[in-house]
Amino acid sequence: MKQKMIGVIGGGQCSSDVENLAEEVGSLIAQREGILICGGLSGVMEAACRGAKKSNGTTIGVLPGDRKSDANPFIDIPIVTAMADARNIIIVRSSDAVIAIDGKYGTLSEISFCLAYNVPVIGLKTWNVDPGIIGANSAKDAVNKAFELAAN
Amino acid sequence: MKQKMIGVIGGGQCSSDVENLAEEVGSLIAQREGILICGGLSGVMEAACRGAKKSNGTTIGVLPGDRKSDANPFIDIPIVTAMADARNIIIVRSSDAVIAIDGKYGTLSEISFCLAYNVPVIGLKTWNVDPGIIGANSAKDAVNKAFELAAN
Amino acid sequence: MKQKMIGVIGGGQCSSDVENLAEEVGSLIAQREGILICGGLSGVMEAACRGAKKSNGTTIGVLPGDRKSDANPFIDIPIVTAMADARNIIIVRSSDAVIAIDGKYGTLSEISFCLAYNVPVIGLKTWNVDPGIIGANSAKDAVNKAFELAAN
Amino acid sequence: MKQKMIGVIGGGQCSSDVENLAEEVGSLIAQREGILICGGLSGVMEAACRGAKKSNGTTIGVLPGDRKSDANPFIDIPIVTAMADARNIIIVRSSDAVIAIDGKYGTLSEISFCLAYNVPVIGLKTWNVDPGIIGANSAKDAVNKAFELAAN
Repeated sequence: MKQKMIGVIGGGQCSSDVENLAEEVGSLIAQREGILICGGLSGVMEAACRGAKKSNGTTIGVLPGDRKSDANPFIDIPIVTAMADARNIIIVRSSDAVIAIDGKYGTLSEISFCLAYNVPVIGLKTWNVDPGIIGANSAKDAVNKAFELAAN
Repeated sequence: MKQKMIGVIGGGQCSSDVENLAEEVGSLIAQREGILICGGLSGVMEAACRGAKKSNGTTIGVLPGDRKSDANPFIDIPIVTAMADARNIIIVRSSDAVIAIDGKYGTLSEISFCLAYNVPVIGLKTWNVDPGIIGANSAKDAVNKAFELAAN
Repeated sequence: MKQKMIGVIGGGQCSSDVENLAEEVGSLIAQREGILICGGLSGVMEAACRGAKKSNGTTIGVLPGDRKSDANPFIDIPIVTAMADARNIIIVRSSDAVIAIDGKYGTLSEISFCLAYNVPVIGLKTWNVDPGIIGANSAKDAVNKAFELAAN
Repeated sequence: MKQKMIGVIGGGQCSSDVENLAEEVGSLIAQREGILICGGLSGVMEAACRGAKKSNGTTIGVLPGDRKSDANPFIDIPIVTAMADARNIIIVRSSDAVIAIDGKYGTLSEISFCLAYNVPVIGLKTWNVDPGIIGANSAKDAVNKAFELAAN
């Protein structure tokens, strides 16, 4: 059976509280044997990848720039797009479910694409602008919902 | 002096009220000698282009598919991307200001990119999710604000 | 009737001979009332656009970067992609016929896409790697062939 | 140490001889503990992935369409772009070295991008249009050269 691919989206800068939350999300995705896919940079992305690697998971970073070296140190598989935010769409389309944590306008664009493509999107301390965004009250709750809803 | 490029975004399907509003917006953009740039398809996009052509304006359609024939009949210059919604980003980045009318998740993604890139975005009966979206109460008000705010 | 869109592709750096050839091509496209579409930068692209503007034509630059100011001074309509060479595909797909002048690997990629998508491609002092590339012996010959072959 | 990512490019349709060659290439990449990255579809891509999976390797398919189900059955990690051939660029940019096998215009575009971005490209029964394409006389020779030249 294929491993589920779980997207983690959120800002490139975040508070330490949000970082802790993202790290826990990443760790739990790995424990459930999901592959973590994200934008490959800092902030929420890096924290989630750090968590995933602590739990021996696999991480994919879909990078906006043109160099593998832009990836945070916890990315196993860097995908280099050189397409700036067009890579946001690739993250969403490649995910079986997405967990949005905090984040600003880039994250809002990704949430929009989840809603447009019917990719389940679970929100943690993030944009609450549409009933299609599934609320979660903890990292564990978010990851549970993501795996439940991930396309089969 | 370069003509201003004004983006018009909104859904591929809309009510006749919204259609009338979009047509008026398109007509006013043309009267102000702006170039109208949009996604090139039906609904809000087609209505705005019809308005622009009635006022002898120029229209650009940045198409998601791989055929020029996907363009609505009021597009002068079809730009064929074959990149699905990645074309949303191109519309935003090419606009000096954007007018959002009605619309659903695709429109929300475009509004997000406007906010991310500091492209002025004026909202007419659309997503009201961030103070960065500039409200307007009529087509005329929206077009006035768009030209005022368009980058020089 | 729609104006034909003629792509001009070639390197961002070139000799003065090639520049003269490109300028003549641009001028002739404008005289035939075609719209010139190109990558919007320097070298062959800028020379062709200069020629088109001297003959009162219209020029579109599909830019790889994220700023309108990257466009050469002869671009009327800058399309901003921020997608690096993915914009090469957009130039090809939006053209009714393409004229390739000189150029290196980026130009070879564009010629490949012309051949892949059955967009007529006329070669002037450029890659001669496939019988699908239509030879031309002068700017005039190239432009004549481009308009003959442009999709109706 | 990071696993090398080796791109395999070639047509979606091919002869059984080419298929055998691609399968051997894929198998050898996996034996050397490289990750195989390709366009995810049929022909050369599928044969190479089948070879990689026989040798317990990991395979990534960067898909042009909008559905994971377009991937051939030997893809472990489908990356869904919905960007048609713009995905060719992503394959090249994400590869530490590329092996081109047979192929037509899409393959030529990918070879062009390898040459443009200085990604080492090894050719097996493919386009021989530039001295930058490194010749190989067998699957083994190609894979050896790919790993030697892969960026560190």
